[in-house]
Amino acid sequence: MIKLYWAPRTRSLRALWVLEEAGAQYERVRLDLMAGEQKSAEYRLINPMAKVPALTDGPVAVAESGAICAYVAEAYPDAGLAPPPGDPARGRYLQWLFFSPGCIEAAFLAKSANVSIRSEAAGFGEFDRVFDVLEAAVQPGPWLLGERFSAADVMIGLDLHFGIDIFKLVPTRPALRAYVDRCLARPALQRAKAIEAAGA
Amino acid sequence: MIKLYWAPRTRSLRALWVLEEAGAQYERVRLDLMAGEQKSAEYRLINPMAKVPALTDGPVAVAESGAICAYVAEAYPDAGLAPPPGDPARGRYLQWLFFSPGCIEAAFLAKSANVSIRSEAAGFGEFDRVFDVLEAAVQPGPWLLGERFSAADVMIGLDLHFGIDIFKLVPTRPALRAYVDRCLARPALQRAKAIEAAGA
Repeated sequence: MIKLYWAPRTRSLRALWVLEEAGAQYERVRLDLMAGEQKSAEYRLINPMAKVPALTDGPVAVAESGAICAYVAEAYPDAGLAPPPGDPARGRYLQWLFFSPGCIEAAFLAKSANVSIRSEAAGFGEFDRVFDVLEAAVQPGPWLLGERFSAADVMIGLDLHFGIDIFKLVPTRPALRAYVDRCLARPALQRAKAIEAAGA
Repeated sequence: MIKLYWAPRTRSLRALWVLEEAGAQYERVRLDLMAGEQKSAEYRLINPMAKVPALTDGPVAVAESGAICAYVAEAYPDAGLAPPPGDPARGRYLQWLFFSPGCIEAAFLAKSANVSIRSEAAGFGEFDRVFDVLEAAVQPGPWLLGERFSAADVMIGLDLHFGIDIFKLVPTRPALRAYVDRCLARPALQRAKAIEAAGA
């Protein structure tokens, strides 16, 4: 059975949400980050970066929230969280999964640190372009792949939720707001948030 | 047939390398970035970020170099560039693919901009830890997944090659140097570099 190592108020929310979307049976192991449990020798065998989330599934271990989303989507194919290989939407699905760390998180990092980078050198290009592209991508809706919700929406939906509602870094765009609201209305995200609020 | 949109001295080298490893038949379309060809309306349908690399494969379009590596690996399963779903190494494979943008590129961005971020907040944690973790990962060798070369080595091998040899950002570690040298010795990377040098 899948074990999720997690803590509230971290990127663990992505893992909780995707597992809830998948309808997975899983065990949650909450780490006390203040007590340093993520730095134990035992946990570092699961994630040497000493970060949450990380997941084990029998002999499999996987960290990095994007990898966890990809892994859960393919472990529960019946949940339809990923177009399978060979599906014409597969390329865009993979692209949006990597767009989250490669473009959105990089743009947040540069913006919050007030760093200017030549757009040619930065993987994310220009800050505003990242959100122009996302706006155009979610405008037709309801999801990044159209009618099909996918694990990429878990990554990017939470990036935008945090960027708009918490960090206040994302320029106000009605289409982005509406997309985040559609994400927040999903029962699986509501269950994930309830787990986080309860801390267990 | 796969069409690769590319330009020299960009992250396109990742795409060239993985396509050469796969033994793919593909057409190269070089964009003149100085002339702004990547900003054409036609190209933005392929990659709205107006960046290279991007790839089309019939009705499929995919950008982001990590997504391209994942896509090519699964499009050419006989090349063995990815453990298939269900393989115990699948989790670590996905983890290392996402480790490249999520941890290594983020650490480079923060370091080159001289930004300090709380290690709890940063996806990459601490700069030195990223390279401690990589050192331990490649020490047994020869590859991140042991005897099995994978598309994750394409991502991380080039991150380390550029970080060590070009940007001089990565602390000198013999195990990292040896791993990069193993990557540089691969005939497929040598072919990719020859294509880049010839510009066609």
